[in-house]
Amino acid sequence: MNTKLNVVPFVSVDHMMKLVLSIGVERFTRELADYIEADFRRWELFDKTPRVASHSREGVIELMPTSDGEVYGFKYVNGHPKNTREGRQTVTAFGVLADVGTGYPVLLTEMTILTALRTAATSAVAAKYLAPKGARTMGIIGNGAQAEFQAIAFKALLGVDRLRLYDIDRSASLKCVRNLAGLGFDITVCDSVEEAMVAAQIVTTVTADKQNATILTDNMVGSGIHINAVGGDCPGKTELHPDILKRSDIFVEYPPQTRIEGEIQQLAADHPVKELWRVIAGLESGRTSERQITLFDSVGFAIEDFSALRYVKDRILGSDFYEELDLLADPDEPRDLFGMLLRAA
Amino acid sequence: MNTKLNVVPFVSVDHMMKLVLSIGVERFTRELADYIEADFRRWELFDKTPRVASHSREGVIELMPTSDGEVYGFKYVNGHPKNTREGRQTVTAFGVLADVGTGYPVLLTEMTILTALRTAATSAVAAKYLAPKGARTMGIIGNGAQAEFQAIAFKALLGVDRLRLYDIDRSASLKCVRNLAGLGFDITVCDSVEEAMVAAQIVTTVTADKQNATILTDNMVGSGIHINAVGGDCPGKTELHPDILKRSDIFVEYPPQTRIEGEIQQLAADHPVKELWRVIAGLESGRTSERQITLFDSVGFAIEDFSALRYVKDRILGSDFYEELDLLADPDEPRDLFGMLLRAA
Repeated sequence: MNTKLNVVPFVSVDHMMKLVLSIGVERFTRELADYIEADFRRWELFDKTPRVASHSREGVIELMPTSDGEVYGFKYVNGHPKNTREGRQTVTAFGVLADVGTGYPVLLTEMTILTALRTAATSAVAAKYLAPKGARTMGIIGNGAQAEFQAIAFKALLGVDRLRLYDIDRSASLKCVRNLAGLGFDITVCDSVEEAMVAAQIVTTVTADKQNATILTDNMVGSGIHINAVGGDCPGKTELHPDILKRSDIFVEYPPQTRIEGEIQQLAADHPVKELWRVIAGLESGRTSERQITLFDSVGFAIEDFSALRYVKDRILGSDFYEELDLLADPDEPRDLFGMLLRAA
Repeated sequence: MNTKLNVVPFVSVDHMMKLVLSIGVERFTRELADYIEADFRRWELFDKTPRVASHSREGVIELMPTSDGEVYGFKYVNGHPKNTREGRQTVTAFGVLADVGTGYPVLLTEMTILTALRTAATSAVAAKYLAPKGARTMGIIGNGAQAEFQAIAFKALLGVDRLRLYDIDRSASLKCVRNLAGLGFDITVCDSVEEAMVAAQIVTTVTADKQNATILTDNMVGSGIHINAVGGDCPGKTELHPDILKRSDIFVEYPPQTRIEGEIQQLAADHPVKELWRVIAGLESGRTSERQITLFDSVGFAIEDFSALRYVKDRILGSDFYEELDLLADPDEPRDLFGMLLRAA
């Protein structure tokens, strides 16, 4: 991308938005999903370090590194539920891609928007293998920052075009209706979770409260449904009643992490789960019957961010959607760092 | 520093050089050393995660996070010895400081130059407590990118002004002589390690080879000397013969890390060492006799980077030595991330 050794391409929030819009949100999500699927297929190749979390009373700051042996990536991400009260995002993120051979970063990018896109794309990739065939109706419980991204991803990858929205704050649902207007959805705003579940073949739970909540109870879940559980993603934060889990075939990203952070933190440590990558790689079956309840217990994994970083790096090539950041000291003679400093005078 | 929630102050390489020069290298090092000493004094308060390393055949990429409970910091740093053959730095780095309360980053900065400064400042802080009183002569074995920074730091903090330089590549020593000209040093370029040790009260070893080398043998080390061992800083990379270690009182930054990465990887896992922070905090003695050999087995620790990030953040306040990076998505309504994206059209 450049021959100036000091420079790292940087994608700002503004550039990310313009990049996404220039490609189109649906197409961006579909192409990003292809990168995620490709990386899930070569899952075993990756260095899977657990995320490095720094917890505080108010939230958490995490570093999520991974590498495929040639490229290294990491994401910085925070989670602070109280932030919205002060006009800040609960989750913000940025990420870096680097060349393993030299250790030099090759991309720095905002990842708040990109994480929203990759989370939705991952959900839709899982649903491709797990949702009932021909599903067109999805209930979305929790209509915050992630909801529209989920809707777009399920439309792009599965053709889902009927949405049933529920949120304890109706204004959140109405925001979704406004944002999704003209994008080809038939949308019903519902007054209860039960109503949102009517005729839904897929239900996405994506609520924000940091607690063990019961968004779905066992009686609400009929046979044959695919549950895309996105909101339960850290210790002490779940959305589903454990009875639902016991009736479901559970698919996860990375068991050691999901057992701590996902819905299955409510189950015994040896409760059987399937790894999504094995389904995608054809090593294990996804949905096998019409009556089966499938559950994607999604917590987000570093490899998905890696895929997103790879995609953005490929996509900005030759575009105007990045700037050059003078991030790496590059003296004429590598041993002469001090001389470079002196000569800057 | 700003009220725009999307913006993170960014210090580029160019801005870092101008910041350092505007303050003056000596004064910068002295002030930075004060921040390091202050943080070493409150050592117990810090969250001390081990660094997260991703090793490859060619080198290593590491994330070094830490937090004092109010501020969180991490450094990205690589180590690729073969890089210099392609005109790249062996070590490059950048770092981030964030607010623990919101998880929002508050500073992004180059850290290649800053790491060189903090490494030297830490060495000099240790020497304040460990070197013989009134030491003015230092041998520097290995005259690469770190050498001049060490010289400046020892001059700034201890008044060391006589240098005896040795490198297997004489041109490296001559580069140091050129760079340090006019800065108040009396410099002798030496033809051997033995010659560099003559009359030296302090010896700094800072060679670059990634191997177990023997830069200093036991017979070269007279009583009363302070050894500042900087170059042995990862598994399989050491500079001192183990017999020297056995005659020395050894001071380290963080024992769990130094026992893996430092000179003491050559010793038994229970060989007694003292923690530098305890000496600085007055809980333990540093140098206690004139004949004692003291050794600072330095590998670099996340808290030193944290101090450096704090210092830079304080120093750029009100200056022109940073730019504003549009790094964090900031929708008018936190739940309306998708709407922000749409409206960017």
